[in-house]
Amino acid sequence: MIPFELTILGAGSALPTIHRSATSQFLHYNGQNMLIDCAEGTQIRLQQLKISAMKLDRIFISHLHGDHYFGLIGLINSMHLNSRIKPLKLFGPPELINIIQLMLQASDTSLNFPINFKPLAGFEKQKIDEDEQLQYFSFPVKHRIPAWGFLIKEKPRRNIDPEFIEKYNPNHQQLQAIQQGEDFIDASNARISNAEIIQLSSDQRAYAFCADTAYHEPIVDYIKGVSLLYHEATFMQDLQVLASKTLHSTTVDAANIANKSRAKQLLIGHFSSRYKDLNPLLAEARSIFSNTQIAVDGLKVVI
Amino acid sequence: MIPFELTILGAGSALPTIHRSATSQFLHYNGQNMLIDCAEGTQIRLQQLKISAMKLDRIFISHLHGDHYFGLIGLINSMHLNSRIKPLKLFGPPELINIIQLMLQASDTSLNFPINFKPLAGFEKQKIDEDEQLQYFSFPVKHRIPAWGFLIKEKPRRNIDPEFIEKYNPNHQQLQAIQQGEDFIDASNARISNAEIIQLSSDQRAYAFCADTAYHEPIVDYIKGVSLLYHEATFMQDLQVLASKTLHSTTVDAANIANKSRAKQLLIGHFSSRYKDLNPLLAEARSIFSNTQIAVDGLKVVI
Repeated sequence: MIPFELTILGAGSALPTIHRSATSQFLHYNGQNMLIDCAEGTQIRLQQLKISAMKLDRIFISHLHGDHYFGLIGLINSMHLNSRIKPLKLFGPPELINIIQLMLQASDTSLNFPINFKPLAGFEKQKIDEDEQLQYFSFPVKHRIPAWGFLIKEKPRRNIDPEFIEKYNPNHQQLQAIQQGEDFIDASNARISNAEIIQLSSDQRAYAFCADTAYHEPIVDYIKGVSLLYHEATFMQDLQVLASKTLHSTTVDAANIANKSRAKQLLIGHFSSRYKDLNPLLAEARSIFSNTQIAVDGLKVVI
Repeated sequence: MIPFELTILGAGSALPTIHRSATSQFLHYNGQNMLIDCAEGTQIRLQQLKISAMKLDRIFISHLHGDHYFGLIGLINSMHLNSRIKPLKLFGPPELINIIQLMLQASDTSLNFPINFKPLAGFEKQKIDEDEQLQYFSFPVKHRIPAWGFLIKEKPRRNIDPEFIEKYNPNHQQLQAIQQGEDFIDASNARISNAEIIQLSSDQRAYAFCADTAYHEPIVDYIKGVSLLYHEATFMQDLQVLASKTLHSTTVDAANIANKSRAKQLLIGHFSSRYKDLNPLLAEARSIFSNTQIAVDGLKVVI
């Protein structure tokens, strides 16, 4: 199985505590390294977990509340001081780049490496990037300021029809040509089209990140069938009124989204600092969606 | 003795490590609480040391390299979320307030408490604030971008001449009037001026903070006779060329400033992350100025 793994760097909410950092996640897929959100102290968390920030290819920032990005400028600064030259792809709300530029200006810093910034926008799910292995999507969620969720999905694998292999016994060179999209010419000079030979897999794994957001029904369609859903659950259901007022979700909201989208696994996080014991939150979510886990700092989840 | 105590929150330099946070210091004087610089993670350091950020009266930011202020916006944000209403005095380079305002704007935050910002300026030592107990000065240091040091000094105590007391045996009310600046009228109706009665103490304690800076001779006059001097010592003397190039100091530079200014005690910090063992730095500084200590995270020094 190709490695696809999420590491929780911080699972707390706006007020960081000694035991729970604010939101930051590290995602690894077969040599591709990403951060989703980057709260204050993220660079130290990475050091503690022996993850090199120099290897990061992409950083996604969901929105500009401080508990989701106040560690970004420090991380960028440290990459610069460590002589990074590899370009960094950065996805975030449009104002993010102005903030970074103002801070770099104030310290008279000209980065050794380029930041390729792509502003998030739009009221629909959008493909914001793609590489050989993965597709990257953003979608709007519902919060007090513009905020986006992310979906990171394997591309369909190109499998060759086993019946074709049995019938024609193609050699290695021919198989490579087929993988690259070419048609096949058989011994009698008849052409078999590539589309007839290739079967696209439909079981691609995907990770969806939804924070910060109120319960927002359109998310269900955006993430349909996702392998792992991280959804914020700031409050328990008894504080539904407070959740609605602050445009956050409850454990029940998160579980309902997981259930309706037919997610395979749910991870809840962004817990209000009022909760010392997280077991009641877990129990409440599991009452609706049994395959739920609690996000705690340092947790690793294989996708 | 009136309490006057420094707590080192971070003593590292630009690249924070697991064991050494970047620059941040907490200073307490008899109910007055201050921060000097505020690196990333300062709010968590304060929590670890059980120091309430809500009690801070003043924050001084020396310059706008990230390792001296990237924790400020998070700290301000948390004070806001914790419903602070007490005004905060903030001293720093002029651009600092623009950065804070841009980040507050991006998160649509209108603070519950006012920040009274005083921009640092000038090429001389300046009194930037004063209260009943203390005087606060800034002075320019020598770095790659505009940077300031700080001197926080007790006001002279108004002692009444013991000979006057012996001769006139004033009562409590009369003593209070003298303390408030009034002259004294004796039994024969002769006037003795306040200045004749009051002796100003000349042994006021003071704390000086000098970072980041190259060796800069004018500092000697700015801080003459200081009780405790914190001076950066990024490098050992064998890296003098690198220190000059980056406008930082060596252990020898710091010790020379302490020596020439007749400081009573020297604290060195802001060590390059290349130094794992700090004892050689301490030994080198002590060869010139014996009453030297190493700043380590969590250290408390009584002034």
